[in-house]
Amino acid sequence: MLTPILNSADRRPLYEQLYRHIRAEIEAGRLRAGERLPSKRALAAHLKVSVVTVEGAYGQLLAEGYLRSEPKRGFFVQAVQQERRTDAPAAPPLAPSRPRASLPYDFSTSGVDTSLFPFSTWAKLMREVLSAQADSLLAASHPQGVPELRRAVAEHLYRFRGIRADPEQIVVGAGSETLIAFLVQLLGRDGGYGVEDPGYAKPHRILSSCGAAVRPVPLDGHGLRVDALSALKVRVVHVTPSHHYPLGIVMPVARRQALLRWASEQPGRYILEDDYDSEFRFSGRPIPALQSLDSGERVIYLNTFAKSLAPSLRISYMVLPPHLLERWRREFWFYSSTVPSFEQYALARFMEGGHFERHLNRSRTRYKARREALLSAARDTGLTRAGSFAGGDAGLHLLLWMDRRWTEAELVERAAAAGVGVSPLSACDLTPPPPDRPPALILGYTRIAAEDMAPALRHLKGAWGF
Amino acid sequence: MLTPILNSADRRPLYEQLYRHIRAEIEAGRLRAGERLPSKRALAAHLKVSVVTVEGAYGQLLAEGYLRSEPKRGFFVQAVQQERRTDAPAAPPLAPSRPRASLPYDFSTSGVDTSLFPFSTWAKLMREVLSAQADSLLAASHPQGVPELRRAVAEHLYRFRGIRADPEQIVVGAGSETLIAFLVQLLGRDGGYGVEDPGYAKPHRILSSCGAAVRPVPLDGHGLRVDALSALKVRVVHVTPSHHYPLGIVMPVARRQALLRWASEQPGRYILEDDYDSEFRFSGRPIPALQSLDSGERVIYLNTFAKSLAPSLRISYMVLPPHLLERWRREFWFYSSTVPSFEQYALARFMEGGHFERHLNRSRTRYKARREALLSAARDTGLTRAGSFAGGDAGLHLLLWMDRRWTEAELVERAAAAGVGVSPLSACDLTPPPPDRPPALILGYTRIAAEDMAPALRHLKGAWGF
Repeated sequence: MLTPILNSADRRPLYEQLYRHIRAEIEAGRLRAGERLPSKRALAAHLKVSVVTVEGAYGQLLAEGYLRSEPKRGFFVQAVQQERRTDAPAAPPLAPSRPRASLPYDFSTSGVDTSLFPFSTWAKLMREVLSAQADSLLAASHPQGVPELRRAVAEHLYRFRGIRADPEQIVVGAGSETLIAFLVQLLGRDGGYGVEDPGYAKPHRILSSCGAAVRPVPLDGHGLRVDALSALKVRVVHVTPSHHYPLGIVMPVARRQALLRWASEQPGRYILEDDYDSEFRFSGRPIPALQSLDSGERVIYLNTFAKSLAPSLRISYMVLPPHLLERWRREFWFYSSTVPSFEQYALARFMEGGHFERHLNRSRTRYKARREALLSAARDTGLTRAGSFAGGDAGLHLLLWMDRRWTEAELVERAAAAGVGVSPLSACDLTPPPPDRPPALILGYTRIAAEDMAPALRHLKGAWGF
Repeated sequence: MLTPILNSADRRPLYEQLYRHIRAEIEAGRLRAGERLPSKRALAAHLKVSVVTVEGAYGQLLAEGYLRSEPKRGFFVQAVQQERRTDAPAAPPLAPSRPRASLPYDFSTSGVDTSLFPFSTWAKLMREVLSAQADSLLAASHPQGVPELRRAVAEHLYRFRGIRADPEQIVVGAGSETLIAFLVQLLGRDGGYGVEDPGYAKPHRILSSCGAAVRPVPLDGHGLRVDALSALKVRVVHVTPSHHYPLGIVMPVARRQALLRWASEQPGRYILEDDYDSEFRFSGRPIPALQSLDSGERVIYLNTFAKSLAPSLRISYMVLPPHLLERWRREFWFYSSTVPSFEQYALARFMEGGHFERHLNRSRTRYKARREALLSAARDTGLTRAGSFAGGDAGLHLLLWMDRRWTEAELVERAAAAGVGVSPLSACDLTPPPPDRPPALILGYTRIAAEDMAPALRHLKGAWGF
């Protein structure tokens, strides 16, 4: 008869030890298919355990299909394959993913200075939400995001971007990546998706991994070449008109109008307006969004709080034209919101209380000072003789066009060896650039303090010898 | 000359009023393309404003492309289309989305009883995270999720599901929907995606809206019919082996092995094991996951905290086999984590502190009592003479097979009229069911207190007349 070693001192209950033993016997083939097990009462007596213990073990084996029960006859072993189980030694441990290499002077564009974030205010608001809105925190939230946040976003868009959006048109999501992937489902994979070339790499990668045919669209000094769209068979285009990444071009009104005309020429054409860093315009009023010029429901406006607050917050939003909103509600209503209610309520309070506006103003002042310190250090160190800055008055990075002494790869490598992180323009090329294009580097200035700009550029001077 | 009414009492700065006026003149065609504007000095003198004001307005118009500047000659109006602007009356307001109809007795399966959630503990942990981990909260988190949470999940999986998963294999995401959409990108859209028929509707909708060819796979009493997969040209299959939704079938070991064999027969075959409510098994030990039987890296295990904690938390996770993890890190590393770090740290503490296990135990006890109250009320009211319950010992719903007096639609409608919400089995059919299938209803029992089960069933008795 089955005689497992049942150990009362074992953390596991007796029925589980018995269950495991019998399962192992079946899997090892020592108990064969069709074999009858002892009755519960007999086995309990044999093992000096209660009948309940045996019942628990048999019940589990029945539920898992190791045994079958025949009325009045008893329990029989089922045919199961003798499978190698995970009790076998585990695979060698996986290497943890490598951390990002961090250089003393990091002109990366991928983050912001999170020390500017008013964390104590944020924490206070979060505590308020925890105590005041406990009930609403646990219920599944509205698929488009909580109404309070959508109202605050609509108000912000109206005041700062000239966009009239009904809060009902707004859809909140866990990052622009999530929203872009979602838009491919809404707009369909047919027809080409145009992206700016050079441009931000992520939209291209997301669109193509979502199954869209992605077509790089060339630029000129006014941004995306609208005249190239028809030949390229583009149906939907992703653009950054407020501040092109990385060239810094602000798309002029005539080009915006041409783009809107293109979209209105055929049904099913859409413009994804990615306004990722429009909050950071340093001179004059912010440029009106494409969306605010659109009378034909062709523009889907996208923005994120990753740049304006903190990347870890994972809150982006889009403004859907009414006819797309209706389709979305009809076909995609089953999607749950991807952002926890908690962050949404906290952000709504943050915006309603004016904290967001104040934070933007503070950040703008700080980043402007950094940009000026960078430009002034460039003059002082003589960098402006070896290259020239472009990138307009907006955004959080500058483009540095260099003379041809070195290639971009050499410049990046030498800079890194001197402790300075810069990115090559070529990282944003989707197709080979014109052979005569001079080397250029992208310098984000959100992560280096103003007083560190001069030392950073002195290191660059040592590396590049300008 | 331009003579706007500039108003110092206006909230808007003078330069902005001037900018708006000139822009409106250009758009209305009153200032024509090619026309030269007055010099800054002349206009400032005319309007009795400072030169800086005019500079601000001209600068903005230049940046937006309404003007161009020619060195030594001055400012000229650019050709722009006369576009209808959003200053025009806005479209009629959109109807807010309709709230879910809520019935007094709601046997819905879509939520859980959030009153069981230990909110004060959760709030305490969130406050701890806010004060202790402020720095790490704002930095962009690891694309797979914060290591603390992945370690806690791995530990939980090992202790409660027999799954050996390296924390490095775990990917955290904003809901199973997000993860499934993501898996289509990872596994590719080629070949068919099989889903259980009948089954949970969401995987089907997500997979097909992501561009996969979805093929419904029939079931028998042991769950998904593995023998049907080859004829259906399925390459990837989504299954709920621990507790099929809605039939409640627990897939026996022999069928699990057959499914694993099917997956191992061809490269590129995968099984998405959706373990959505496996925490709620009421008798015996939880059934080992398919993943724990898989020696060929064919199973991707998916689970969510929406059922076990609260739907609003939007935290799910998957366990990728090592070779898929490597591919993911190579090709999809650019995706940011979709879950805020804040919730991830709070949940990690919640799990490490044993709160999750205690919460599961409490919930299990509570839900078991509700299930028993439902079954006992069904006997007392005579419902068990008109129909029979199925659904095994697990999960958070039961299936009620009814005699043929009424159709499912009639049963649902009559129940609703009596204040009782039940769902028809047919809501889960992907293809027409066999004509001889009796009507069946899905009864989730997480949202009705034990003491309300008898009144709920008395209402049903009135509606159905059993």
